[in-house]
Amino acid sequence: MGALRLPSLALLLSPCKSLRLVSRPLLLRLRPSTLKPAASVSGGAGSRGLSSHSLAKEESSLPPPSADRKPSSSYEGSVTPRSVDFNAWYLDVIASAELADYGPVRGTMVIRPYGYAIWEAIQEYLNVKFKETGHSNMYFPQFIPYSFIEKEASHVEGFSPELALVTIGGGKELEEKLVVRPTSETIVNHMFTQWIHSYRDLPLMINQWANVTRWEMRTKPFVRTLEFLWQEGHTAHATLEEAEKEALQMIDVYKKFAYEQAAIPVIVGRKSRAETFAGAIRTYTIEAMMGDRKALQAGTSHNLGQNFSRAFGTQFTDENGQRQHVWQTSWAVSTRFVGGIIMTHGDDAGLMLPPRIAPIQVIVVPIWKTADEKNGVMNAVSSLKEVLHKADIRVKIDDTEQRTPGWKFNFWEMKGVPLRIEVGPRDVANESVVVSRRDIPGKPGKDFGISMEPSVLVTHIKSRLEEIQASLLQRATSFRDSNVVDVNSYNELKEAIAQGKWARGPWSASDAEEVKVKEETGATIRCFPFEQPQGQKKCFMTGNPADEVAIFAKSY
Amino acid sequence: MGALRLPSLALLLSPCKSLRLVSRPLLLRLRPSTLKPAASVSGGAGSRGLSSHSLAKEESSLPPPSADRKPSSSYEGSVTPRSVDFNAWYLDVIASAELADYGPVRGTMVIRPYGYAIWEAIQEYLNVKFKETGHSNMYFPQFIPYSFIEKEASHVEGFSPELALVTIGGGKELEEKLVVRPTSETIVNHMFTQWIHSYRDLPLMINQWANVTRWEMRTKPFVRTLEFLWQEGHTAHATLEEAEKEALQMIDVYKKFAYEQAAIPVIVGRKSRAETFAGAIRTYTIEAMMGDRKALQAGTSHNLGQNFSRAFGTQFTDENGQRQHVWQTSWAVSTRFVGGIIMTHGDDAGLMLPPRIAPIQVIVVPIWKTADEKNGVMNAVSSLKEVLHKADIRVKIDDTEQRTPGWKFNFWEMKGVPLRIEVGPRDVANESVVVSRRDIPGKPGKDFGISMEPSVLVTHIKSRLEEIQASLLQRATSFRDSNVVDVNSYNELKEAIAQGKWARGPWSASDAEEVKVKEETGATIRCFPFEQPQGQKKCFMTGNPADEVAIFAKSY
Repeated sequence: MGALRLPSLALLLSPCKSLRLVSRPLLLRLRPSTLKPAASVSGGAGSRGLSSHSLAKEESSLPPPSADRKPSSSYEGSVTPRSVDFNAWYLDVIASAELADYGPVRGTMVIRPYGYAIWEAIQEYLNVKFKETGHSNMYFPQFIPYSFIEKEASHVEGFSPELALVTIGGGKELEEKLVVRPTSETIVNHMFTQWIHSYRDLPLMINQWANVTRWEMRTKPFVRTLEFLWQEGHTAHATLEEAEKEALQMIDVYKKFAYEQAAIPVIVGRKSRAETFAGAIRTYTIEAMMGDRKALQAGTSHNLGQNFSRAFGTQFTDENGQRQHVWQTSWAVSTRFVGGIIMTHGDDAGLMLPPRIAPIQVIVVPIWKTADEKNGVMNAVSSLKEVLHKADIRVKIDDTEQRTPGWKFNFWEMKGVPLRIEVGPRDVANESVVVSRRDIPGKPGKDFGISMEPSVLVTHIKSRLEEIQASLLQRATSFRDSNVVDVNSYNELKEAIAQGKWARGPWSASDAEEVKVKEETGATIRCFPFEQPQGQKKCFMTGNPADEVAIFAKSY
Repeated sequence: MGALRLPSLALLLSPCKSLRLVSRPLLLRLRPSTLKPAASVSGGAGSRGLSSHSLAKEESSLPPPSADRKPSSSYEGSVTPRSVDFNAWYLDVIASAELADYGPVRGTMVIRPYGYAIWEAIQEYLNVKFKETGHSNMYFPQFIPYSFIEKEASHVEGFSPELALVTIGGGKELEEKLVVRPTSETIVNHMFTQWIHSYRDLPLMINQWANVTRWEMRTKPFVRTLEFLWQEGHTAHATLEEAEKEALQMIDVYKKFAYEQAAIPVIVGRKSRAETFAGAIRTYTIEAMMGDRKALQAGTSHNLGQNFSRAFGTQFTDENGQRQHVWQTSWAVSTRFVGGIIMTHGDDAGLMLPPRIAPIQVIVVPIWKTADEKNGVMNAVSSLKEVLHKADIRVKIDDTEQRTPGWKFNFWEMKGVPLRIEVGPRDVANESVVVSRRDIPGKPGKDFGISMEPSVLVTHIKSRLEEIQASLLQRATSFRDSNVVDVNSYNELKEAIAQGKWARGPWSASDAEEVKVKEETGATIRCFPFEQPQGQKKCFMTGNPADEVAIFAKSY
């Protein structure tokens, strides 16, 4: 696949400069071959990698002896271009950018520091919002008696095929099997029943950050793993209206996170009956369009009605002294969102991170030849770092001596760092730096001669980061909008789906017809979007009047 | 037990004031009867509480119809005095202060918002320190193939009796049983082996915040539960010296946290061979003296040597091109620390929290009778809150109308909030408030006429919080020091232990003699403290020369 990679314009236009050959042991650190495939993807001997490359292929794709100090748009030797094979690209990016690795148990994932730092950025934002909206964090045990799962009829139907069961504890067979939580509604209700007595105990609004386990057969790093990390909110209210308001409030928190932090223009809406959470009366969702135009359900918020409170007897005494079942919600966002970020913004060169959630916002690459130059450059670079750090910009210096500047440019591009600052001896002499944007390759993405004067530099960097943040959202929005097709017949839907697009059309047909669409096209109703076109609508399938349009798409 | 409670001096000295009878449904919210006992503590019909009170007792100990607006030193009706029964007091505090509840599976614990907030304070501090010392967070799967546990001989011996095993996944019997992690050294080494190639990959320093499972037979909330939350650090180094330095650095981080944040004067030292972690060559520990003078191991840091790297083949190529096994450490602090905080500082009236980790540092209680008074008081209280909140003081207003001020005073004392501000109509007129300290009961702990002027008030509150923080540490240190006895013979040790104290004496005897001490006295070597007395020492057991003194104590 290496042969398919085209040199970037920047590479072709810039002067050649000889660099040391990158030594093999160093490259090994970055080889994507340490990931085991979920299904056996590549059969190459010695290859256990999640990467699409076999080890042999990889070693033959070492960087050429002469590379350029200016960045090429791709990180040679590691990432399959996105345009060539989206799935291979995704797995390569995860391996090369050191986001995750497979665990020893099939379908499990080790989240590596760089990937985990993205999750931490998600946590930090949401945790504040949850508290601002009146929720407290707490922690429920992960072992749930099997009998709990069976109490809510549709819940057990939805989850029982995916359960991991503990049957032995402390060397002994257990009397009752324990479920490793796939979600916590049942145990939450068991406890709520003990804590809720009167209307004065309501609303009860909590959240927990936890790991959950679902025995998935087809796994994919971040998107679907046997164990994953998430937050799950659980609330209990005195009325249906309050629960509905809460469910809507939380899907809005997720939407804002997606737009404002992750730069993902999700579509917010309501799930169809068939796609509603097992145990909910209504599920709201944010649906994101990935780079391959498949949909990713990136967060959900459920109005549970009284389904669980009836199953578990979670009651309160209302202001009139009557016993009533509480009305509940639950809502969750998981490490799957990290996959959504990768697949929304990445390009042929690798990962591209929105500045607000990038673990490193600015990478500083010092460039020198002589010891004398090194002193000057390193001094300049250190004070740059301090200046940016003080301005709350997440900055890192790559001063390893084993790698060439060109290699570093490619590497940090592949890691998706939004901005790069290059500092060479001439820059030090001029007291200025070159600032390069990750999202715009080559010269158009570079600002030359930016003064090192702290206030000037900080202002420049901050405004560039905001521009990149806005630009990523804008780009993703255009991409989404150009790939959603309005359809008025089943044939039009089929055509849109066959082209890999999303189809939006009036829908009031039956669950059975929804299944038929899925079987015949592979697409499901992603949601009935909150934003609905004006005017009368006719179901494209039946011709009957329809209240709403639905969005159909293939999905992860 | 309620009969044993003496009214506080404050209660006897202050003028009586009639208050509404607290209605029963409200009290139900706070009753400690929702906790199930670990072992069956109380046999009262209908009582499932972890509390020492039976439900009947509880209901008969409702507050009397007239209570005082000045605080009594105990939260009537809920907490057994610590001086009467330490264990019952501990369980009562956990129930009444709503720190935790038992989960449905024996030995599991639900950490409620107030208890979880203490854990969050621990996390926030340590997380920053871990990053400052060069560690990155990441996440390993919790399911570990059973064969991994068997690879390190002493590790399997130490952990196999405590394992929870998943044997069924997705409805099918698994080919290999999966261990729900009791700790992660094995899976960490499995991954490190894939990531570490050359000396340039070292040191590798990571941490994870996670849940772990150990099938304990005798459980106690926070102190020992079937599942608990912790952080586990794991590092790999090129030399033994570096690993040793790291292990020492991390036990020092824990020590600083204990002293400076939790106000717990831990003793730092090295574990005896018998008490060393299963798989380590050396274990460092911080040992805390609880209010009943039992020792609590509050954090450990292990030098693992090459035990795991040899078992898992975790090797690197050194600067001379030689393959070597890495040298490793691991270190952990868990939710057990919350138990340590409760048992170090609490008193007969309930919990007492060090200001730096208190979820609420200042509780504001507004007091009024007429609607007119209410307006003035609530306005004053709102602006107080804003002022303190802006100064980064964690403040809460208790403005519920269902409870009397006196009830609130007792309640928030029982919850351990360091400072209380009372605001009545007269205070509003005088533009001043009364500030009461949790750690000093009655008048001596009160500051009258503190101006509401923002800068004055903030300065006063901040300095009082610092005083309380220092005072709690000082008090705990005096208590500890007056309960450690220097011993020079086995008889002296027996006497000290029989008195419930800690014994410190020179020790160079055998492991067998250590076992004998345990069997005969119930005490174990808690550590060989880093701080050692000068001069020659003779083992108090054998009379042989001894390099060090050891500390013996009964422990949790």
